[in-house]
Amino acid sequence: MAPPSNEGEAWFGEREPVGIEQRIQVRQVLYEGRSAYQRIRVLDTVPFGRALVLDTALQTTETDEFIYHEMMVHPALLSLEEPERVLIIGGGDGGCLRRVLEHSPREVVQVELDREVVEVSRRYLPQVSAGAFDDSRVRLLFADGYEYVVKSRETFDAVIVDLTDPLPFSPSLRLFTADFYQAVRRILTDQGLLVAQSSSPLLLTRDLAAICANLKAVFPLVRLCLAPVPSYPGVLWSFALASQGNDPLALDEATVQQRLKEQGIETRYYSPQTHFGSFALPPFLADVVAQPERFEELKATQPVAH
Amino acid sequence: MAPPSNEGEAWFGEREPVGIEQRIQVRQVLYEGRSAYQRIRVLDTVPFGRALVLDTALQTTETDEFIYHEMMVHPALLSLEEPERVLIIGGGDGGCLRRVLEHSPREVVQVELDREVVEVSRRYLPQVSAGAFDDSRVRLLFADGYEYVVKSRETFDAVIVDLTDPLPFSPSLRLFTADFYQAVRRILTDQGLLVAQSSSPLLLTRDLAAICANLKAVFPLVRLCLAPVPSYPGVLWSFALASQGNDPLALDEATVQQRLKEQGIETRYYSPQTHFGSFALPPFLADVVAQPERFEELKATQPVAH
Repeated sequence: MAPPSNEGEAWFGEREPVGIEQRIQVRQVLYEGRSAYQRIRVLDTVPFGRALVLDTALQTTETDEFIYHEMMVHPALLSLEEPERVLIIGGGDGGCLRRVLEHSPREVVQVELDREVVEVSRRYLPQVSAGAFDDSRVRLLFADGYEYVVKSRETFDAVIVDLTDPLPFSPSLRLFTADFYQAVRRILTDQGLLVAQSSSPLLLTRDLAAICANLKAVFPLVRLCLAPVPSYPGVLWSFALASQGNDPLALDEATVQQRLKEQGIETRYYSPQTHFGSFALPPFLADVVAQPERFEELKATQPVAH
Repeated sequence: MAPPSNEGEAWFGEREPVGIEQRIQVRQVLYEGRSAYQRIRVLDTVPFGRALVLDTALQTTETDEFIYHEMMVHPALLSLEEPERVLIIGGGDGGCLRRVLEHSPREVVQVELDREVVEVSRRYLPQVSAGAFDDSRVRLLFADGYEYVVKSRETFDAVIVDLTDPLPFSPSLRLFTADFYQAVRRILTDQGLLVAQSSSPLLLTRDLAAICANLKAVFPLVRLCLAPVPSYPGVLWSFALASQGNDPLALDEATVQQRLKEQGIETRYYSPQTHFGSFALPPFLADVVAQPERFEELKATQPVAH
C-alpha cells in the first residue's frame, strides 16, 4: 500500500448530473491506491472523520456508517424468525457483515469483488467491521457476485446487495438487473428477503425507478424504505426489500422490539419506530415505486429535481 | 427592482461550519437587490428551478417547496378539529400561507418583517403562494414578529414560525428564544399548536438542541418531525411542534385521511402515512429531543457529524 500523503485535496466533491455537488472538507489523504478494479482512497474528513472513496464516490464514513448499515440489515433480518444463512454481495468495508452477525446466523457468505477494498477498510476503518471478518461463521470469497449467485447451489434466508451505484460501465451494473434478481430469487428460501441499496430517491430517481421495475419483474413483494446518510450526495437514501411475500410491514413494533432484545442488538438509527417510519413513503415517491415504468410520465407532472 | 442579470454565478454554494458545502448549479440570476434587512436574490437553478436566496441562505425553490411547506402546516393544522385563526410569522414566500388556507380558517394573520421578500416572491415565484396573498381571509402585516406576538391581544389556534436560521446577529434569532415561545403560548388557544422550522438535525444539531430546550422550558408537549428538503444543505430538515398537550401523534391514520378529504387537500409529500413516519425519530436524534440540555454529552458518545 502507498504511504499516507499530507498533500491531499482541501475538499472532496461529488457532483450529480442534475447540477448538485456535495463537498466535504478533507484534512488529509490517509491512503491512495489503485486495485485491479478501481481507485481506492481513505480520506480524513472534517465533518465525518475517515471516509472510504471508490473511484469518485464516497462509500462510507466512520461517523455515519451506522445509519446506512443498520438500514441495510436490520429491517430485513428482523423480518425473519431465525435467519440461519445470509449472503452479502459487495460490502467490502464490513459494516453490513458486522450487523448481520448480530442476528446470530449459522453462516454468512460474503462475496466481494475487490480484495483490496477489504484490506484497506480493515486497516484504515477497523471500527466499521469491528472484527467481523475474523468471525468463524464468516466465509469471505473474493469473486464476482453475479457469477457466484448464478452458479450457487446453496440457499439463503437473506441476500444483501451492498454495491457501488449502477453507473454505466461499472462492474456493479449487472447486479441491478432483472436477470440478477431472478438468480437471487432461485437461491432464497420461501421466506427469504433480498435487500439492495437503491440509490438517491431525490437526485437519481431514474436509477431508483429502474431498480424497482427490475425487482418487480421478479418478486411479488417490493418495499422501499428511506434513511438519511449525511455523507452521501442528496443525503436521503433508499433501500429496496423484495421477497416472495414475507413483508417487513407485517411485523408489529412489539415483535421488532422483542427480536432486538433477544439478540441483544443495540442501534443508533434503527428502532421499532424507525422500522415502520422509514417505509412511510411520501406520495411522490410512492408513485415511483408503485409504477416505476411510468416514472418519466410521473416526473413530468410531479417535478422534484428536474 | 433591479433588472435581471445574465452574468450570475455558475454555482451557488452554502457552506456549513462542520465542513460541508452544498453547491447548486445556476443558469441565471433573475433578481438581485438589497432591502432594509437583507440581500435578496432569485436564481434560476438547474436542479430546482427558481430559488429564493436571502443573504447567503437558500430559502425555497419552486420544485421542492412543497415538501417544506406541507410539513410546516399540515401536521399541526390536521391536529386541530377546526383551525379558525392562524398566525404566520415570517414565511414571506407565501408557501405556508397557501397551505394554511387549504384548512378553511376564518382568518390568517401573517407578520413578515421584510415587505420586499413578499414582493420579490410574488413576482418571481408566484407558484409558491399561488394567489394566497390575494385571499380575503388574509391580513398581511409588515412588522416585527416578536413585537407583534408580545403585544397581541388576539388568540390563535396555530402559530407557524417560518424564519431564516437563527444565525448570530440575525433578526430571526430572538424568535427562537424561550421568551418568544412564552409570548406565543400566551396567545394560543388551549388546543393550539406552535410550529417552528428547527434547522438541520444533522449539520446544525446544536441549534436544534437549543430550540428544543427553549420550547421545553415553556410547553409541556414538544414533538419533532423530519423531512428531506433536497435544496437545503444536509437535506434532512426538522420541524418542532409544541403545545399545552394537543399531540399530533394522538391522531390516527383514518382521522388524518378523513380531515384531508373533508377539506379537499391534495399533497405530494404529506400523507396519513408520512404524518406518523416523520415523527419516528432515530434513537440518536430522539436523545437530543428528550434531553437537549445533555446534547454536548450525547454528542461525545454518539458522534454523527463532529
